[in-house]
Amino acid sequence: MAADTHLDGMHSRRIDAGSIALNIREAGSGPLMLFFHGITANSVVFTPLMARLADRFTTIAVDQRGHGHSDKPESGYDADSYARDIADLIRALDRGPAILVGHSLGSRNAVTAAAHHPDLVRSVVAIDFTPYIETEALDALEARVNAGAQVFDRPEDVKAYLTARYPNLPAAAIKIRAESGFHAVDAGLVPLASPTAMAQTVTGLRSDLTGAYREVTRPVLIVRGADSKLVSADALAKTSRLRADLPVVVVPDADHYVNEMAPDTTFKAITNFIDA
Amino acid sequence: MAADTHLDGMHSRRIDAGSIALNIREAGSGPLMLFFHGITANSVVFTPLMARLADRFTTIAVDQRGHGHSDKPESGYDADSYARDIADLIRALDRGPAILVGHSLGSRNAVTAAAHHPDLVRSVVAIDFTPYIETEALDALEARVNAGAQVFDRPEDVKAYLTARYPNLPAAAIKIRAESGFHAVDAGLVPLASPTAMAQTVTGLRSDLTGAYREVTRPVLIVRGADSKLVSADALAKTSRLRADLPVVVVPDADHYVNEMAPDTTFKAITNFIDA
Repeated sequence: MAADTHLDGMHSRRIDAGSIALNIREAGSGPLMLFFHGITANSVVFTPLMARLADRFTTIAVDQRGHGHSDKPESGYDADSYARDIADLIRALDRGPAILVGHSLGSRNAVTAAAHHPDLVRSVVAIDFTPYIETEALDALEARVNAGAQVFDRPEDVKAYLTARYPNLPAAAIKIRAESGFHAVDAGLVPLASPTAMAQTVTGLRSDLTGAYREVTRPVLIVRGADSKLVSADALAKTSRLRADLPVVVVPDADHYVNEMAPDTTFKAITNFIDA
Repeated sequence: MAADTHLDGMHSRRIDAGSIALNIREAGSGPLMLFFHGITANSVVFTPLMARLADRFTTIAVDQRGHGHSDKPESGYDADSYARDIADLIRALDRGPAILVGHSLGSRNAVTAAAHHPDLVRSVVAIDFTPYIETEALDALEARVNAGAQVFDRPEDVKAYLTARYPNLPAAAIKIRAESGFHAVDAGLVPLASPTAMAQTVTGLRSDLTGAYREVTRPVLIVRGADSKLVSADALAKTSRLRADLPVVVVPDADHYVNEMAPDTTFKAITNFIDA
């Protein structure tokens, strides 16, 4: 098994996806598998998962709009805009249809893209974001996201902040987020993710997702962390009633941050789905 | 969608699988997909599902040993014997690795075959049989199975018996079982399935299945009927704790007889799994 924290020779580049330039990280060869991170994160969080998959797939993790080193337009942070970027990226890569692996915001975006562009998408692994998420859970998420718009004096302060925000993440995952998600400005260290983009994005996460789940014709594996505070057992059950034909994996010993907390189980769940 | 009850041009033949001759029904073309029925049933119960899949797969439903028109040796009705038949059949067909779709006894046999012969099996759809089935549920199954060793005067009596035994099955599914599962002897109509083979088989269903689930490396989709009286929600939850990486589909409005009660959802669940 490859190392958890680094993928030797990972290639990072910006790609022109039509109306936006997106930063991507690429490793491996084989069928195209794209990774879309959660809100405020970036492509680097998928490094441990990509390390496990790159021997069989062309793994490409994407900094989504407003995040990481991608373009950060003033507006356009709704589901359709994010999903359009995914479609434009697959077209720009010219290697589709792609397997989409999305976490949280990225899960919402991947399922939406698959519903709108079935010709570009082979299948979706939708990690810990479903329809029917309770308002209280979205309120809590919004508060956490908007509280991230801070200036930090030192790298240690970033780590302390992230450790408090993600109390169950392993130290290696905190390290990845700390080292990849912030940059130095005159005042100190600030998040790479644009605060105004994050505020719009978190509002957009409240949009009704039942339509996309109802419509999607490509295979979707629904993955939930057993201890997720975002996707409740009830929200998952309602989603399964909406689409009883979609397979479900519930990952034990993981909260919302399934792939960072349990990369081995996530890896096996993905390959069990893709290899069937 | 093809008709539910008949698959035009379905070809039935006996095939020499080494130590046993098995009767199979075949339709369609494409990757090899084999179907294994539950205890006392036979290959014909899969006709509605095969009708939906035959345009994309070589669908072959098997009369397992002791059942239908296959050989009925005096002994050898444990999991390993049934699984060996599956491996021998795939070798005899010389078109593997095969996708295995099994219901109940057939599910147990398919997962066991996949665990023992990963080179012959692409993946498994394991319908409504898991480890951890409660003793009381197996006792009730055993009583039902052994009560089937009857002589019926008329076809109407067979239908009445089946309707009482499978109270939630649609009339079309009862008709399939009534017309395919019995034959005339001097005394009247008797089941094609050998009563002594059934008694041994139902005892064998009590064997520990955790080893096969722990060991199996090929992808397995676990399917449960939401109203199943054989696989409880608790048995499913324990199975998911044993193998958290295996995807699960729970089919609403279906008891143990998932594919006969809900062929459309079963079909979609299978293709979502296989097409990912």
